[in-house]
Amino acid sequence: MTFDAQAFTEELERLPARERAIQFRLLPKARALDVFEHLDAPNQADLVHLLQADETASYFEEMDPDDRVDLLDELPAKVATRLLSGLTPDERALTATVLGYPKGSTGREMSPEVAVVPQDMNAGDALARVLDRLHDSETIYTVAVSDGTRRLVGVVSLRDLLAADPATPVADFVRPADRALATERAEDAARRCAERRRIALPVVDNEDRIVGILTVDDALRILEEAESEDQARQGGTEPLRRSYLSTPILHIVRSRVVWLLVLAVGASLTVQVLEVFEHTLSQLVVLSVFIPLLIGTGGNTGNQAATTVTRALALGEVRPSDVLKVVGRELATGAVLGLSLGGLGFLITGLLYGWALGSVIGLTLFTMCCLAASVGGTMPLLAKAVKADPAVFSNPFISTFVDAAGLIVYFLIAKAILGL
Amino acid sequence: MTFDAQAFTEELERLPARERAIQFRLLPKARALDVFEHLDAPNQADLVHLLQADETASYFEEMDPDDRVDLLDELPAKVATRLLSGLTPDERALTATVLGYPKGSTGREMSPEVAVVPQDMNAGDALARVLDRLHDSETIYTVAVSDGTRRLVGVVSLRDLLAADPATPVADFVRPADRALATERAEDAARRCAERRRIALPVVDNEDRIVGILTVDDALRILEEAESEDQARQGGTEPLRRSYLSTPILHIVRSRVVWLLVLAVGASLTVQVLEVFEHTLSQLVVLSVFIPLLIGTGGNTGNQAATTVTRALALGEVRPSDVLKVVGRELATGAVLGLSLGGLGFLITGLLYGWALGSVIGLTLFTMCCLAASVGGTMPLLAKAVKADPAVFSNPFISTFVDAAGLIVYFLIAKAILGL
Repeated sequence: MTFDAQAFTEELERLPARERAIQFRLLPKARALDVFEHLDAPNQADLVHLLQADETASYFEEMDPDDRVDLLDELPAKVATRLLSGLTPDERALTATVLGYPKGSTGREMSPEVAVVPQDMNAGDALARVLDRLHDSETIYTVAVSDGTRRLVGVVSLRDLLAADPATPVADFVRPADRALATERAEDAARRCAERRRIALPVVDNEDRIVGILTVDDALRILEEAESEDQARQGGTEPLRRSYLSTPILHIVRSRVVWLLVLAVGASLTVQVLEVFEHTLSQLVVLSVFIPLLIGTGGNTGNQAATTVTRALALGEVRPSDVLKVVGRELATGAVLGLSLGGLGFLITGLLYGWALGSVIGLTLFTMCCLAASVGGTMPLLAKAVKADPAVFSNPFISTFVDAAGLIVYFLIAKAILGL
Repeated sequence: MTFDAQAFTEELERLPARERAIQFRLLPKARALDVFEHLDAPNQADLVHLLQADETASYFEEMDPDDRVDLLDELPAKVATRLLSGLTPDERALTATVLGYPKGSTGREMSPEVAVVPQDMNAGDALARVLDRLHDSETIYTVAVSDGTRRLVGVVSLRDLLAADPATPVADFVRPADRALATERAEDAARRCAERRRIALPVVDNEDRIVGILTVDDALRILEEAESEDQARQGGTEPLRRSYLSTPILHIVRSRVVWLLVLAVGASLTVQVLEVFEHTLSQLVVLSVFIPLLIGTGGNTGNQAATTVTRALALGEVRPSDVLKVVGRELATGAVLGLSLGGLGFLITGLLYGWALGSVIGLTLFTMCCLAASVGGTMPLLAKAVKADPAVFSNPFISTFVDAAGLIVYFLIAKAILGL
């Protein structure tokens, strides 16, 4: 069994920065390079600051253009230019193409080293051309087919080339390609690559000229990062840029405190609502006993709807234009849930606290379920419609809203039924 | 531009079952087959019930063994056996290997059609062998290398085979392989495939004999399903088995109602807690005004910690054995968060309601943040340690716990400071 760079890197990333550097220095050159390539860009940057210039330069030379750019983003301009100037003209050119596209775009994440064959070439020559560029292509399994200029006609898989009769022109078996636009969001291209189950997507510029290729392994990295961000925001925190154990406590605090404050401000709404009804409360203190149960249930119902719809959006099962369909379905769902929970609440509270209070609780639960489900289900669609990240209109926000609205409903119903 | 089966399928899955069948019947045979393969197994099953037996049989014959098994799982035994018996002996044998492994195992999701070459063969012959089986291999880009019997030695990429001098034996450049065990959880194998950025993992049995291959596109499908389940459970609902719009309302209700009830039962804890302190409440009704704000903040802090740690677990950044490290970090984080929120709460409440109440709120917020963060951060690790899905110890549960505990803290502090 040879040296497992990936596993070693994972161990390394569990260590504090200094210790990590020491461990790294102890590696034999060849392995060190392998490990360096496996590290996240922020951790690579930490090392660059601790290593000799020449040492860094040699690693930098060996990296793929797209990884190189990720690292450059983490480094101070001075270091970055020094490293760039150390590259061979070819490598610098390749790096430049990638650097030319805005952060977060597909162009930034793609590899410019793409295998291309013209459509009028025959399968035999095309295969020869691909094998000839075996070593300086990011992948040879997906081959971009051009119209002779750099315009993308489609793709052929290496499998197609091998299966085809060498004499037949590529044009005869080229397949229309799912393409990525160099200027589109990398996350969108990556998701398309994964959903269409492609090994790679050719990347084109606005004139449909082939500029690079996005491979599934890069797509997976991009989606993993996007997934982390969405999950973090749904949990009401900012995503961490390093692994959990290697992130300083104060960075973790920073990733959470703003959200907590925003949500607390939102929650102070409930304080104001309750003050309005303080008189009612003082008349019947037992009402306050049910507050956590009621708003908790409302919040849960809202979160359920939001989670389901957010996921359906991510998978393309629903679109913002389906908003009415969704509201309808969630209202119906909320009504059925409300009937069961409300009925139960009516019975139990009724038996323990009398039927008047029982019907207050029952009715409130019913109303809250309908309200929470439809609001929770609509929020993600609204977010998407206004081009905001659905995960940002996150579950905590819905809870906050449902809390305030639910309390108003609760006390209005209580006043009406108990005549307070 | 040719017919886009994937896009058409997505449209189809937005329609109600009957309408879907009608649309499907209108497709020309060739396209229908293509679309059928793109449908989810449950939707395929719906169609099978509506189509002629012979029609179904022809689709079934064309499917990959692993997809075939997914469909069989959805069908009544009678239909399943009829379809199986319609297959050619070879196809039936391939399907049987996959059927032989338990649901949810890698063996169930792999393709048995794997390209294998013995290590003592030379690159030229190996390449010839692979190309020869071009059409009945799931992939030819990753080739499993055996010791001559079926035991796995490692893998070579097609790229290696093409690059190598035809005379050199495969043994000289075979690489150690990340492998999947046919009996391990498919989700684990898929995650490894994605994390290691492999195009495919060879699948072996307990004697390390090659039995199949798991390709990245299947891995992506498996992870997508797992992701949906985790997100659903974190939102406190059961995952839906079909697309949102094609799921009957009552199925959606069923996926939520159990969780809501469980959580409501949990929340009734808060009712009991509050009853214990009802006397305190009646003495100072204003205390109840802060209940939603306090438990809301506690819940949010807990969710933040749980979300971060759950994600770190999924990415392998932390392990259950790190529990002490995590508790330490979350306690520290909670303390800092508590100081900022508590300080703010103390000031604002102090100014508006007097400093006695101010210090009650401030202290409660501080204690709750420490409690919520450490509990929220530990839960996922505990879940994992007892082999439960961390997503199942989900955020709503943490909120419920924090609500009850927080209320006790609140009233104890209030009694102590206000001497009620």
